[in-house]
Amino acid sequence: MGKVFTHMTMSLDGFIADPHDGIGELFEWYEGGEVSVPSATSDRSLQVDEAGAQVLHEWIDNTGALIAGRHLFDMTNGWDDKHPMGAPVVVVTHHAPENAAERWPNTTFVGDVTTAISEAKRIAGDKNVTIASTTIIQQALDLGLVDEVCVSLVPVLFGEGVSYFGELAKGHLLLDDPVVVPGRRATHLSYPVRR
Amino acid sequence: MGKVFTHMTMSLDGFIADPHDGIGELFEWYEGGEVSVPSATSDRSLQVDEAGAQVLHEWIDNTGALIAGRHLFDMTNGWDDKHPMGAPVVVVTHHAPENAAERWPNTTFVGDVTTAISEAKRIAGDKNVTIASTTIIQQALDLGLVDEVCVSLVPVLFGEGVSYFGELAKGHLLLDDPVVVPGRRATHLSYPVRR
Repeated sequence: MGKVFTHMTMSLDGFIADPHDGIGELFEWYEGGEVSVPSATSDRSLQVDEAGAQVLHEWIDNTGALIAGRHLFDMTNGWDDKHPMGAPVVVVTHHAPENAAERWPNTTFVGDVTTAISEAKRIAGDKNVTIASTTIIQQALDLGLVDEVCVSLVPVLFGEGVSYFGELAKGHLLLDDPVVVPGRRATHLSYPVRR
Repeated sequence: MGKVFTHMTMSLDGFIADPHDGIGELFEWYEGGEVSVPSATSDRSLQVDEAGAQVLHEWIDNTGALIAGRHLFDMTNGWDDKHPMGAPVVVVTHHAPENAAERWPNTTFVGDVTTAISEAKRIAGDKNVTIASTTIIQQALDLGLVDEVCVSLVPVLFGEGVSYFGELAKGHLLLDDPVVVPGRRATHLSYPVRR
């Protein structure tokens, strides 16, 4: 059975976007590097450094399903039913979009986070599940359903914006020491959640 | 001329204390390690790992003056006029405490952040100035007076509390890639502020 991961690119002060969903300088680590990491869906590659390539390959190669919230799904038009990471997507939403089965046949729509994680685990099989929306991550952390918290920590301060972690329902959440992969314009940190 | 540093121990989600100034699990990296780092003021030593000792020695050996806000000064009773790091303290406050010159003869009281930094630089000489209060750090960052931002990043999520960086008056602040020192219960990161 695979694990449940979260992954976000985050400013040093904890934000994954500005208050208007702008990403500012967060994704500089996707550009200008010497290693091409191809997308599953287009001819466009990410150009990352060796550290970024190591992290992306580990992530892409081991992810069997993704979980997204409705906001991210709508922002990307559901990735036109094919996520760049090449894994099926499970969307948490109270109301599936119209004609969902025809427009997004490879995408699964469920009503709550617990169902999303069990459905994503079923799809992923031996591979991992990655949660890619902060609202879902925050609920999954509160429910104790996350195995590993991953952060690509970017050397910028935003001052305000959309928080990766937000408030916690059950107080402080202890993590174990991270695997640290220092890279250009991002320090990649993977923290097991302490059991 | 030395540089102006900030240093704080921070949770992964950006907090240096809970809403009631409690430090929770933040200072586990000060305890249980195999290296003793003595305090300048007492027989009590910090017990840190090799990474922590490296970071603490660099910090202690190179700091010629500290800057603190009034809140921290009051919480510690002005460190009884002798900070554990062994460096003189400059306190930013609108009103110096009563009998300040007698009770804290080695402590300097000034009315604003710009004056505090120039006074601390004068005291420090060739050594560095370290700012140790978030309210002062935030003002100094807005004023463009910080050379390096240092974080001991702890594997815990607080969910709420006192933010290291807070809001920024002038939008996003770019940092250069950090020096990374991975340690037990803290990953030590030193980011030069981009000029």
